[in-house]
Amino acid sequence: MKANNYSTVSFLSDYGNKDEFVGVVKSVIRSIANAVSIIDITHGIKPHDIRAGSLALARASQYLLPGIVLAVVDPGVGGDRRAVAIEINNGEYVFVGPDNGLLALAIAMLGDVTAAIELDNPNFHIPTYSSTFDGRDIFAPVSAHLCAGVPIIELGTSIPELSLQPGLMPVSSMEGNFLVAEVLWQDHFGNLQLNISQEDIEGFNDNLVIHIGDKVRTVRKVNAFNQIQESEIGIISDSSGLLSLCAFGRSAAEEIRVSEGQQIKIENGSPLQETPTMITIKEKP
Amino acid sequence: MKANNYSTVSFLSDYGNKDEFVGVVKSVIRSIANAVSIIDITHGIKPHDIRAGSLALARASQYLLPGIVLAVVDPGVGGDRRAVAIEINNGEYVFVGPDNGLLALAIAMLGDVTAAIELDNPNFHIPTYSSTFDGRDIFAPVSAHLCAGVPIIELGTSIPELSLQPGLMPVSSMEGNFLVAEVLWQDHFGNLQLNISQEDIEGFNDNLVIHIGDKVRTVRKVNAFNQIQESEIGIISDSSGLLSLCAFGRSAAEEIRVSEGQQIKIENGSPLQETPTMITIKEKP
Amino acid sequence: MKANNYSTVSFLSDYGNKDEFVGVVKSVIRSIANAVSIIDITHGIKPHDIRAGSLALARASQYLLPGIVLAVVDPGVGGDRRAVAIEINNGEYVFVGPDNGLLALAIAMLGDVTAAIELDNPNFHIPTYSSTFDGRDIFAPVSAHLCAGVPIIELGTSIPELSLQPGLMPVSSMEGNFLVAEVLWQDHFGNLQLNISQEDIEGFNDNLVIHIGDKVRTVRKVNAFNQIQESEIGIISDSSGLLSLCAFGRSAAEEIRVSEGQQIKIENGSPLQETPTMITIKEKP
Repeated sequence: MKANNYSTVSFLSDYGNKDEFVGVVKSVIRSIANAVSIIDITHGIKPHDIRAGSLALARASQYLLPGIVLAVVDPGVGGDRRAVAIEINNGEYVFVGPDNGLLALAIAMLGDVTAAIELDNPNFHIPTYSSTFDGRDIFAPVSAHLCAGVPIIELGTSIPELSLQPGLMPVSSMEGNFLVAEVLWQDHFGNLQLNISQEDIEGFNDNLVIHIGDKVRTVRKVNAFNQIQESEIGIISDSSGLLSLCAFGRSAAEEIRVSEGQQIKIENGSPLQETPTMITIKEKP
Repeated sequence: MKANNYSTVSFLSDYGNKDEFVGVVKSVIRSIANAVSIIDITHGIKPHDIRAGSLALARASQYLLPGIVLAVVDPGVGGDRRAVAIEINNGEYVFVGPDNGLLALAIAMLGDVTAAIELDNPNFHIPTYSSTFDGRDIFAPVSAHLCAGVPIIELGTSIPELSLQPGLMPVSSMEGNFLVAEVLWQDHFGNLQLNISQEDIEGFNDNLVIHIGDKVRTVRKVNAFNQIQESEIGIISDSSGLLSLCAFGRSAAEEIRVSEGQQIKIENGSPLQETPTMITIKEKP
Repeated sequence: MKANNYSTVSFLSDYGNKDEFVGVVKSVIRSIANAVSIIDITHGIKPHDIRAGSLALARASQYLLPGIVLAVVDPGVGGDRRAVAIEINNGEYVFVGPDNGLLALAIAMLGDVTAAIELDNPNFHIPTYSSTFDGRDIFAPVSAHLCAGVPIIELGTSIPELSLQPGLMPVSSMEGNFLVAEVLWQDHFGNLQLNISQEDIEGFNDNLVIHIGDKVRTVRKVNAFNQIQESEIGIISDSSGLLSLCAFGRSAAEEIRVSEGQQIKIENGSPLQETPTMITIKEKP
């Protein structure tokens, strides 16, 4: 039976930085696999926000080191959602976490599922009377045992790949002249990532008109933040290869009041004028 | 003279993530003990909140790796509170920090004090003219020197274990039909940990009535978050083995406005009805 | 050609803890230089606040481990500001980041610039179509290649030291009887660091009078936080060797409403009275 020795655990969660959750999980991992290196992807996912966690993991995926990917955003902890380990590309990666859709997008981006295991073998868990902290009691020791060389198949029962919860990536669409997109992510700087890419607006002028609910606003295609004028909003091909609404040295999200998951309709604007286009805000009649 | 070589420093503080405090402490440690591994337990303890820090350290204690435990929540830094190193179980752990009660609960959970030293030997400190950052100037270099093999006894003057500041764990009590408890901790998810455990409510029905000041609310015993109905509050045996008030996918703390340290009185509720019990909120006359 | 092998990357940024930025940068570094140790100085610098980042890096500088110092606060990313690597003291440190003044103060404190390179050799970058995340695409791989032994000169074009953006450290001045200072930093605890040191107020009494806009307040020289009376504000020589306004167990910044960068005028107060001086707040006529 094949076994890999993994030396890295990449760790994402919604545990936050206020409490000792992250430190305890790391302590458990290192108590079993002392030499393993743990890289925090982030622990700042909004509590219980599976969608945000799955998108962050997907954005990070192509940069993740080979090894274990431990991801925990798990509102249903202790319930009937399964705890799983999912091997990718014959062991290049093993994802460990809840089977609630959190892992799906990143896995799809990294390759093929070559094993999927429900983590129902308690020999590789920490004894506990609690149902509330599987990160500590199941996912951490399982991740560490994988690093220590335990074959994935020993961790529990093999399950069909098709039984795994799918991830949901909202798709954009055309409605008449409108490209209907969605805000995937508001980052720390206030940039607003959309679920569309450069190709989706290739036929459009450099000026676009965006509709958010009743509000209408002109935005301009740019190649770098510093091309955006003061009080202007730009649209840029961002570091994920998607389009983001952004400002220069300011937060676009503070000006365009819009939340993750909200819809934005985009239509072609007027051709670029000779002077830099100023922003116009107009209310719909 | 016995000396241990320690390879791990577990580090908890109220330094926060905004400033360079944590990074500087780690740099100092690694400049003296380059190969040591540093595990952040948390740095999100509320500034100066010794009680919260001592409880977080106690909750983490049984998972801490053997080695140095560096803990700094130290409003009296530079004053006459002592800086100490406390050896547990003949060197399984050495706690390093201020003698202000912060370390006491965790130490009590881990075993016996086998040495207690006041850190008054300046040879193991960083020269400084400041009294405001002992984490950098005393606790970090002392932790590192312990890792590098300096015997604890060389770090300063031996002091009696009984002279160490005790930790305070509030105890619950019965007042008539009321179990009088206290909120120990509001976690990142809004769960509210109480200073009582499953045994304390064993004779009670599945419905309990909690009194917070003038407010009265029914809560229901559950075994997992997802057994809690929408807009219901559950009471669960949490990952510390204590009872927590919680909600499903929501913050219990946002609904039950209560602070850490506040009192909650619990009385027996009506037996469980056949349909899931809905919440009733009633104001006291 | 001389090459150093570096084993530590000290990393400061304004990336925050909410997103995966920091984790991705670390993953990229470790994918190229697997054994390197990464120390987070802080990622809590306010977005785009070059001044705050440069001051944090300067305060940390004398404690930084020899090796790579990766610092990214970079509102002009993708624009015409240069990406640089700056060697200090013949290779004791190499600073990697944007040439926008962020690195200058720390470099000045650490020694002499012995090489300055514009990072224009794409062989040491990650291929990308985006201009928005040089931390991931340029600074991380360059830092890692330096650790892996690539000589700095191979990373791009040598540039004159004098062409580097200077850092700005505001200087204090005397205006009549007033010492005119500036708030450099409000830390996590609410201490307010000024750009003056003990020597600047040596001739003053133990009581000082500070003027902030129209407000006037008495503050008292102290040697430790716990010498400050309840509701009093003290002035202390802090861990950077500068003077800070502070309170005991409370936030001075919450009481003295003042922002980083704001001016404070200081004049001599009355000689210390026998009883501890109480605070007086008076509005200017």
